[in-house]
Amino acid sequence: MPDGLVEAFWEYERALMADDVPTLVGLFAPGPTTLRGDANGVLVGHDTISAFRSTRGGTPARRIVQTHVQVVDDDHALVVAVTELERGGRGLQTQLWARTADGWVVTAAHVSAPAPALDTHIWRVVGDPLVPPTGAGPLDGESVAVKDLYAVAGQRIGAGNPAWLADAWVEGSHAWAVGALLEAGASVRGIARTDEFAYSLAGTNVHSGTPPNPRAPLRIPGGSSSGSASAVSLGHATIGLGTDTGGSIRVPASYQGLHGIRTTHGAVRRTGLLALAPSFDAVGWLTRSASLLAAVGDVLLPERPRDVRRDLVTVGGLTALAEEDVVFVVDSFAASVGAVREHWDLTDLPDWLAAFQALQAWEAWRERGGWLTTRLDTLGADVRGRFEAASLIGEDRANAALRVVEQARRRIRELVGDRVLVLPSSSSVAPLVGTGLQAVRDATMSLTCLAGLAGLPAVSLPRTTRDGLPVGVSLVAAPGRDRDLLELAVSLEEIR
Amino acid sequence: MPDGLVEAFWEYERALMADDVPTLVGLFAPGPTTLRGDANGVLVGHDTISAFRSTRGGTPARRIVQTHVQVVDDDHALVVAVTELERGGRGLQTQLWARTADGWVVTAAHVSAPAPALDTHIWRVVGDPLVPPTGAGPLDGESVAVKDLYAVAGQRIGAGNPAWLADAWVEGSHAWAVGALLEAGASVRGIARTDEFAYSLAGTNVHSGTPPNPRAPLRIPGGSSSGSASAVSLGHATIGLGTDTGGSIRVPASYQGLHGIRTTHGAVRRTGLLALAPSFDAVGWLTRSASLLAAVGDVLLPERPRDVRRDLVTVGGLTALAEEDVVFVVDSFAASVGAVREHWDLTDLPDWLAAFQALQAWEAWRERGGWLTTRLDTLGADVRGRFEAASLIGEDRANAALRVVEQARRRIRELVGDRVLVLPSSSSVAPLVGTGLQAVRDATMSLTCLAGLAGLPAVSLPRTTRDGLPVGVSLVAAPGRDRDLLELAVSLEEIR
Repeated sequence: MPDGLVEAFWEYERALMADDVPTLVGLFAPGPTTLRGDANGVLVGHDTISAFRSTRGGTPARRIVQTHVQVVDDDHALVVAVTELERGGRGLQTQLWARTADGWVVTAAHVSAPAPALDTHIWRVVGDPLVPPTGAGPLDGESVAVKDLYAVAGQRIGAGNPAWLADAWVEGSHAWAVGALLEAGASVRGIARTDEFAYSLAGTNVHSGTPPNPRAPLRIPGGSSSGSASAVSLGHATIGLGTDTGGSIRVPASYQGLHGIRTTHGAVRRTGLLALAPSFDAVGWLTRSASLLAAVGDVLLPERPRDVRRDLVTVGGLTALAEEDVVFVVDSFAASVGAVREHWDLTDLPDWLAAFQALQAWEAWRERGGWLTTRLDTLGADVRGRFEAASLIGEDRANAALRVVEQARRRIRELVGDRVLVLPSSSSVAPLVGTGLQAVRDATMSLTCLAGLAGLPAVSLPRTTRDGLPVGVSLVAAPGRDRDLLELAVSLEEIR
Repeated sequence: MPDGLVEAFWEYERALMADDVPTLVGLFAPGPTTLRGDANGVLVGHDTISAFRSTRGGTPARRIVQTHVQVVDDDHALVVAVTELERGGRGLQTQLWARTADGWVVTAAHVSAPAPALDTHIWRVVGDPLVPPTGAGPLDGESVAVKDLYAVAGQRIGAGNPAWLADAWVEGSHAWAVGALLEAGASVRGIARTDEFAYSLAGTNVHSGTPPNPRAPLRIPGGSSSGSASAVSLGHATIGLGTDTGGSIRVPASYQGLHGIRTTHGAVRRTGLLALAPSFDAVGWLTRSASLLAAVGDVLLPERPRDVRRDLVTVGGLTALAEEDVVFVVDSFAASVGAVREHWDLTDLPDWLAAFQALQAWEAWRERGGWLTTRLDTLGADVRGRFEAASLIGEDRANAALRVVEQARRRIRELVGDRVLVLPSSSSVAPLVGTGLQAVRDATMSLTCLAGLAGLPAVSLPRTTRDGLPVGVSLVAAPGRDRDLLELAVSLEEIR
């Protein structure tokens, strides 16, 4: 055993248990190539690793129960250690140590901790399955992550808020969409986290935390169908059932590299679904493939004569609302599918967005205000701010907003016509966890509010920026053309 | 980059995806120091790793999305790779490569795969929590893994058999023990796997698989309260609620290094508990500490005047039924607590065991035979064999067995008297997964049947063999002395 290695190993362990950050930082090799990896990804470079150390707070208490050392030479050795956690379970840690002028340091570490019973950032309840299929059909073998806004018989609706959950009754029957999926052969894997009352696009629920974004570690998952999306990304379920009022399917699909659909307003029955803003709420779902996205559509969507018109159109003024890396992705996509570039008069878009947000807020308060009035302090700051603002909207302002919404609906439907509009699903890639989100929310909603205002179906297709981050391209068409969009998504996946 | 390393890395990846075992085996360094670790532990030596390769079947389809290389010298390099699984989620792989005369080989590998939604070997359903507490008290903050034999309101009882689960009704109220734990402040984390109808001591359910034994990787968890035990070992729950008919608490406690109690027969109400053999079935639980084991006893056990007599006794002829490493542990323990060595006439023990097994079988068939008659083919081979043999036991043989059981009960109670008997909780450490279990079952039941026959309380304390494997020492006393044993266990933990 090289001189001093054993001492350095135990010094590291002591510092880890004491959360002695300066010592830990000093025991990692300086420079940009030092590595630290775990289930959430790899941190590269001493500075990144140090920043992680300083913010994580201590490591769960553990002891080393086995060590294996492979000496490479006098100055390099690999140490593999089995750990036993005080709270239960075993972990594994692999470290490559190097001797420097300042003593032994770790140049690379790989840490595995035992998995929890369930990832409570993603799930409230899971089962094997939670609910078995009631029939057999095209969705045999598929599993559904149900957003915690839909009724599942025998379970409560939690709506992302623990006080609401505590007051909730046990549902006697399934929401219509849940029942239809079960009859088609799918099982329910579990009930997935949502932003509180679905009133967010971030997926950063203050009570249950932020679900992971496996395709973009350290970035937010997107919401409000955040748990359903992360569950599908991780392969915990194959279908993420969610809702989309102002982008709650399209945004997580975009941030996580998933396929997603917001259906035509009213096309899928909302029985058993807790409302956010009924004028805009639409059933939606997320999958890892276009073919499964379409298969679910065959189950949930009404039959309709097929409309093969696929004239694609792209509007520079809309695409330009997104950030540069997203513009590049959308323009490349539009070019590859031969979308016609068109100019739309978007002068009224800010007014449309404001009217959308005002009417959404007014309806949200009408739905939840009675219960929330005495319970605003149960909400996280962002959602609370939105509901508080909502409570101040009077009938006059709501009526004015409604008139603008109706004008916008007519105008947007005219503009889209019988074509398929190509636009960004979100204004940016997923923001880093911990960054301010209000500006991103407004920029994204300038794009997503169009389908919301006009009640149009929208399918989000997963694409990748030049930096390798996921971002979605949305296809929007006339009301009722959901199946046409799904078929288009399948054909685009095939030729990709 | 050293010559040939990149090619070797990609050759390994190709072979992994093709499940090309010879190539994979060849790409791991020969010799006894090669390492391969994952969440289940570390395999040491080329032969062990090769054996694992040959039996595991392929790896889930994946692609490499990031690689980071640290070159140590011309002949050594560390390669860290982020993988993206086709079924969802990301993994991490760290390999130390060395150049040999035959080319590049891996000397150590550490592999992390994304966790599933839930470990279905351990759990059927889990939640955050599945059922919240109904009161506050001494168990505030504790979480319970409920063996799938107890009623949980809103859930079905699955009893470890999918056909039974499919026929089961939704329970309207909690089993008495579950309700009492919830009132004392504990929550239900979930419903944990059991051997089929609790009729096994192995924990190798053929339908849901074998839960892990984190303290003794590659060894069976012990049953039938196997899911509850593994959940507590892994820190998924703090209390494992189970049952013990012929050892189903004591054996998993012994194999996994947990504290466990089988209560006095009839001392804890069995309302809402699916019976195996009512003459012997007893409520029990598992924890990671003696103090929590006792705290649960304070909630579930009837109050009773404290009996401070703690004369410990050990019987050479009983201890000798265990394997040598276990005998050493039990004798050391007995010596350390000053147990008096005593000689008992154990001539009738084989008859007692036979009578226990016959009456258990007769009762088990009386309980489940009606349903099982047409459904024997839904059972795994071991449990099926036991139920088939049970179905052949006539009333005469049952009555004869009952007479022997009654004699044995009187005799065992006389022998134990007002002392505390020290004996092994199981005849051996946990057997390796995949080895024959019938002989182990019989040897262990020679020991565990004593408390079963006489309806006595038994507490299993976790100890360790010289090889570092967990094994339990049981303390057995007169009926109703459960709290005395728990207090003794706490005091022994303190002085340890």
